[in-house]
Amino acid sequence: MRNAKMRPTDIQTSTMNDIKEYMKGVGQAARAASRTMAMADSNAKNHALENIANAILLNSAKLIAENAKDVAKAKLEELDAASIDRLTLTEKTINGMAEGLLQIAALPDPIGEISDMKYRPSGIQVGKMRVPLGVIGIIYESRPNVTADAAGLCLKSGNACILRGGSEAIHSNQAIAACVHQGLREAGLPETAVQVVGTTDRAAVGELITMKDYVDVIVPRGGKSLIARISSDAKVPVIKHLDGICHVYIDDEADLSKAVRIAINAKTHRYGVCNAMETLLVNANIAEKVLPELCKTYLDKGVELRGDDAARKLVAQMSAATEEDWHTEYLAPILSVRIVANVDEAIDHINTYSSQHTDSIVTENYSKAMRFLREVDSASVMVNASTRFADGFEYGLGAEIGISTDKIHARGPVGLEGLTSQKYIVLGNGQIRI
Amino acid sequence: MRNAKMRPTDIQTSTMNDIKEYMKGVGQAARAASRTMAMADSNAKNHALENIANAILLNSAKLIAENAKDVAKAKLEELDAASIDRLTLTEKTINGMAEGLLQIAALPDPIGEISDMKYRPSGIQVGKMRVPLGVIGIIYESRPNVTADAAGLCLKSGNACILRGGSEAIHSNQAIAACVHQGLREAGLPETAVQVVGTTDRAAVGELITMKDYVDVIVPRGGKSLIARISSDAKVPVIKHLDGICHVYIDDEADLSKAVRIAINAKTHRYGVCNAMETLLVNANIAEKVLPELCKTYLDKGVELRGDDAARKLVAQMSAATEEDWHTEYLAPILSVRIVANVDEAIDHINTYSSQHTDSIVTENYSKAMRFLREVDSASVMVNASTRFADGFEYGLGAEIGISTDKIHARGPVGLEGLTSQKYIVLGNGQIRI
Repeated sequence: MRNAKMRPTDIQTSTMNDIKEYMKGVGQAARAASRTMAMADSNAKNHALENIANAILLNSAKLIAENAKDVAKAKLEELDAASIDRLTLTEKTINGMAEGLLQIAALPDPIGEISDMKYRPSGIQVGKMRVPLGVIGIIYESRPNVTADAAGLCLKSGNACILRGGSEAIHSNQAIAACVHQGLREAGLPETAVQVVGTTDRAAVGELITMKDYVDVIVPRGGKSLIARISSDAKVPVIKHLDGICHVYIDDEADLSKAVRIAINAKTHRYGVCNAMETLLVNANIAEKVLPELCKTYLDKGVELRGDDAARKLVAQMSAATEEDWHTEYLAPILSVRIVANVDEAIDHINTYSSQHTDSIVTENYSKAMRFLREVDSASVMVNASTRFADGFEYGLGAEIGISTDKIHARGPVGLEGLTSQKYIVLGNGQIRI
Repeated sequence: MRNAKMRPTDIQTSTMNDIKEYMKGVGQAARAASRTMAMADSNAKNHALENIANAILLNSAKLIAENAKDVAKAKLEELDAASIDRLTLTEKTINGMAEGLLQIAALPDPIGEISDMKYRPSGIQVGKMRVPLGVIGIIYESRPNVTADAAGLCLKSGNACILRGGSEAIHSNQAIAACVHQGLREAGLPETAVQVVGTTDRAAVGELITMKDYVDVIVPRGGKSLIARISSDAKVPVIKHLDGICHVYIDDEADLSKAVRIAINAKTHRYGVCNAMETLLVNANIAEKVLPELCKTYLDKGVELRGDDAARKLVAQMSAATEEDWHTEYLAPILSVRIVANVDEAIDHINTYSSQHTDSIVTENYSKAMRFLREVDSASVMVNASTRFADGFEYGLGAEIGISTDKIHARGPVGLEGLTSQKYIVLGNGQIRI
């Protein structure tokens, strides 16, 4: 790296001081671009999204060729099969990226939306206007399609963004960034609205998460250790997703056919996802009726079962769950099972062990459903539905930048609105404070 | 301090380890109380607020006696007159506290509010429910009335709170806390929902702002150095207020009588407040017409003027403003004045120097008003109104815990809603993800 004026797409090694200067340059360019993006009209932003989608489709051969360099290196370095799978771009994933961008273009523009304008006794009219956050820093791991998704969401919500993908995907990310820049340029928007950090040096992340003057919020996407590290070191606010320890509670007044359907879907639809159920709670009054049948299906599907003593009395193939199990996000075909006396015990268990991601009750009882909704302190709380629905697309947000398990700013799936804020606006006619 | 089970109202000296244990105990009690408060119905919360108001009025002699101890100590330690003034409780401030609590009781309960419930193609119905944040830590300086205000707002919004007032107000704060506890007890709510930290040791603040397991958000109230220190050391999210460098821009299409009225009010209504104007921007086309008259009034009121060259040509008594001036929150009868060529230059100046608190344009031109509203990136943006209106009461929030100059979660005056969050709720009928 020669100096701070290098193009952010250059890849070079560097000293710590160079990195500091370089990231400052990236930050300043992002801050300047964010001012333009905040004022960009919906048409310009939608044209940019459509242009980027086109550029990605037209350059698919190039993207696959660049991606092949990353994949070859990953194989040489003996990355595990799952990581290489996430890293690999195919015609299908490329079409998916373009499709995702067109879906974002079709969403309503959140920026400039005015709401709640009310006259006050002083004669002023006060309400809110939705505005971008400014500059979003996104830190992610191997999936290169995040580059297009994240750029699209930030662009539509009027933000500038600084993307820092995994070093193993650097060629793929740079090639996608070239398409993004082409699309922005053709729409008359600044290319610096989306910058891909051009160095694989880890120190760049350290700079990104502490540049309070240039970055308004950090969204880390990746494994738990990455997110925990970033949250602990960041000086910029972080919208984060930690564990997904999700529960389904089958009440004694559940419709058992719904209960079985939901409990099977929540665990076995996909194992490695954050909204999969990890612990099943069953009311003691109906445990004998529902648990053996349910567990037979789990075992048939190859799910390992770990339970408390009461559950193990009903299902012979269940091993003993430890305290550790209730705290564990397996992300695997393993399920912990606990028998509870009533909805109070279920809520207590969830508020103690849940990661406040997504929890569901199956019941036909109105009052218990309402209590569960009110009292379970999680980002998504459900009645008679599979935890697998906790997702931006399923919720109608159109796309998501991630799922937040935080309490402030945004909870649950974070779509365009989570990348915005509201300022107060006041319309007067010469009023002064008396 | 003997052990972690001491009552939080005990005042004793202690070792660092004792403080850690003590604060952990306070945190655990707050977390437990927050669960009860989240489920408390509106009636119970309103009764508690009314009971506290009563207790404060009935114990006014006691409050004044306890306050006298703090005031005597402050005088002995030769605190400045302004600090002693803020510290002193009178019949009037005590009535004000009680009145404030009754006003909070009269506000609608934000908790449990359900909005935006929409059916999705999968058949589930998705929307949001407003919920408390959990445990709020409030750190403040000499004003003892904050103890009642903050307790009232946290209580109504279903949160538990941990209050850490200035050591100079410890007797006053403890006496007010006793009234709060009496009111909570009489309403059947846990006293630990409002805890006043019982040690004046500074280490307690260090614990409070890093206890991520027990505290969900910190609201610091006080001077800039206090807030900067807390923000930099906190591991818990902080809702903060830094500078209030507010601007009024008088456009060349302004109604000059409105302009003069607003510019005078914004600067001279009160000098030491965050929403007072610190810099006046005047369009060059009307500067000659409006500035001499306006400045005569400022000078009559004893306001010192500092301006750029163009402004100084029009007003002889104006000294030269330095770059430093544009960055300064005077909180005093000093005003910086700059002549700008047009609304673009005004917006540029504001987005460069403003602390993103509150900025106002005076104009009769529709397009310029709309551009100013959209393009000025501040928590409150106004047209033809005094910056002094940026206030929770004036905005109809009923009361405010503070004014946020942050971008995420809450911008501008923070009322009950700023102490809440929204979780997703999903109502299903047995739906599973396919």
